[in-house]
Amino acid sequence: MTLNPLDDRVVVEPVEAEETTAGGIVLPDAAKEKPQRGKVVAVGPGRLLESGERCPVSVGEGDEVLFGKYGGTEIEVDGSELKILRESDILAKIVG
Amino acid sequence: MTLNPLDDRVVVEPVEAEETTAGGIVLPDAAKEKPQRGKVVAVGPGRLLESGERCPVSVGEGDEVLFGKYGGTEIEVDGSELKILRESDILAKIVG
Amino acid sequence: MTLNPLDDRVVVEPVEAEETTAGGIVLPDAAKEKPQRGKVVAVGPGRLLESGERCPVSVGEGDEVLFGKYGGTEIEVDGSELKILRESDILAKIVG
Amino acid sequence: MTLNPLDDRVVVEPVEAEETTAGGIVLPDAAKEKPQRGKVVAVGPGRLLESGERCPVSVGEGDEVLFGKYGGTEIEVDGSELKILRESDILAKIVG
Amino acid sequence: MTLNPLDDRVVVEPVEAEETTAGGIVLPDAAKEKPQRGKVVAVGPGRLLESGERCPVSVGEGDEVLFGKYGGTEIEVDGSELKILRESDILAKIVG
Amino acid sequence: MTLNPLDDRVVVEPVEAEETTAGGIVLPDAAKEKPQRGKVVAVGPGRLLESGERCPVSVGEGDEVLFGKYGGTEIEVDGSELKILRESDILAKIVG
Amino acid sequence: MTLNPLDDRVVVEPVEAEETTAGGIVLPDAAKEKPQRGKVVAVGPGRLLESGERCPVSVGEGDEVLFGKYGGTEIEVDGSELKILRESDILAKIVG
Repeated sequence: MTLNPLDDRVVVEPVEAEETTAGGIVLPDAAKEKPQRGKVVAVGPGRLLESGERCPVSVGEGDEVLFGKYGGTEIEVDGSELKILRESDILAKIVG
Repeated sequence: MTLNPLDDRVVVEPVEAEETTAGGIVLPDAAKEKPQRGKVVAVGPGRLLESGERCPVSVGEGDEVLFGKYGGTEIEVDGSELKILRESDILAKIVG
Repeated sequence: MTLNPLDDRVVVEPVEAEETTAGGIVLPDAAKEKPQRGKVVAVGPGRLLESGERCPVSVGEGDEVLFGKYGGTEIEVDGSELKILRESDILAKIVG
Repeated sequence: MTLNPLDDRVVVEPVEAEETTAGGIVLPDAAKEKPQRGKVVAVGPGRLLESGERCPVSVGEGDEVLFGKYGGTEIEVDGSELKILRESDILAKIVG
Repeated sequence: MTLNPLDDRVVVEPVEAEETTAGGIVLPDAAKEKPQRGKVVAVGPGRLLESGERCPVSVGEGDEVLFGKYGGTEIEVDGSELKILRESDILAKIVG
Repeated sequence: MTLNPLDDRVVVEPVEAEETTAGGIVLPDAAKEKPQRGKVVAVGPGRLLESGERCPVSVGEGDEVLFGKYGGTEIEVDGSELKILRESDILAKIVG
Repeated sequence: MTLNPLDDRVVVEPVEAEETTAGGIVLPDAAKEKPQRGKVVAVGPGRLLESGERCPVSVGEGDEVLFGKYGGTEIEVDGSELKILRESDILAKIVG
């Protein structure tokens, strides 16, 4: 069973925020908004421009991303905890 | 008796949120906004662009969709509980 | 005496919200916003686009429509209670 | 002494809200916003579009109009109580 | 010493609000916003449009204008009390 | 050490607000927002338009300007107190 | 491990705010927002324009920049404290 997100939405599978990780991402536990890490599961067709065309989402399935913790909607599918975000909730791709 | 939604509105028939379902969607009952599931009954002509053209709605009659619980307007037609949403209330299509 | 609404405004004559109706519309009396039903009496020239052209209103005189209860301005003309709405207050056309 | 309103502004001379009128307009005295009636005294050149052109105001001198009571600025000129409105404060033209 | 206002700003010299004037303008002292009268001293190049061009300000030096009392910034230059407004603060030109 | 402001930002060196000045600017000490006077030290490339082009800032290095007191960010560089403003914080150029 | 910021985001490594510095930047410790200094580590593809094109970010890797203290999201990568900002959080480039 899969989710096809609409518009510029992105479905990600959040990774538990490891305090210290081989990959080097440590999410400071300051009270302030701690970004989350996760893997892209599905992407929508992209934001609608006034021309009527869509601007493709700039991340793809399998990418690892960093996103604002408080954005998006949580949902469980086939036992996995997923989040449906807007592209603008995603801060960066994690590479290497 | 049918409803022809205007603009980018979509009429859906919400499905009761099954806790665990064959289809795999479990809507976490966290206090936070739990998305709802439902079937598309009718769609409007789509959002009006500055060019004066309409951008067709990206879901169609019969599609199963996931939408934000607090969006839209509730109405009962011929005994069915329906919701009239904006396209932007819809998070994703549920496929397979 | 008639009202020619301006811009994308629409004049409707609200129909009393029947609890159960032959036509099948039952407006749930949940505390939440109950949409109203009414008949279109007059429509404006439509929304002004940046090009300077107008986009015609997508309902016409005589159409039955469903609209958000709290939108618009009430006024009585020749003994009839009317409402002056914006096109965006109208949720759907009721057909058949 | 005359006022030349700027942009899409319109100068109207409000007519006292008759409870019941030959012309048929009765402004319900519900606590909610009661629209006012008045005659157009002067109109501006119209709203500026991004193209730099102006879209002419859709009412003219001498028209009878209905407008939101709380919009605009009151001013007295040569003993007459006038109101300077935006075109968007005007709900409809009263014809016949 | 002169002020060259930027963008669509206008420098005016407010005239004391005469209660009753030969010119006919009486500013009602209702608690509500009483518009002010003044003479245009200098105008900016006008509002910037998306095309990069400017739309010239629709009042000129020496014009008498009516403007919202609470808009703009007060400043004294060479002993005169001036106000720096946006064009959109100006309601109308006073002619004749 | 110099600051190259980004976008439509402008770096100014505020001049202490003289109560009465040869140049004629007296900033009324009304509680309301008293504009400040200062000299332009550096300007950015200008506001980005939808076309992707920039609209040059309409003041230049060495110009004397008047700006809203509460806008911008304060910073000290090489012992001078500077302010980084947006072009829209600047009310007018002071000439002569 | 590197971060590829999305859209018009910029990753910077904040420099501890030196009270007095050879380079001349002293960030006044007024209660008001004290801007921060830092080095650009990575930049995104730039802001999306309505045409579908991107406007490149106007700072590059290695640039020293000044940015609003309260903007952006903090994150630690490979032991370094980084901030992910929007281009509009950056006030100026520090040159020389």
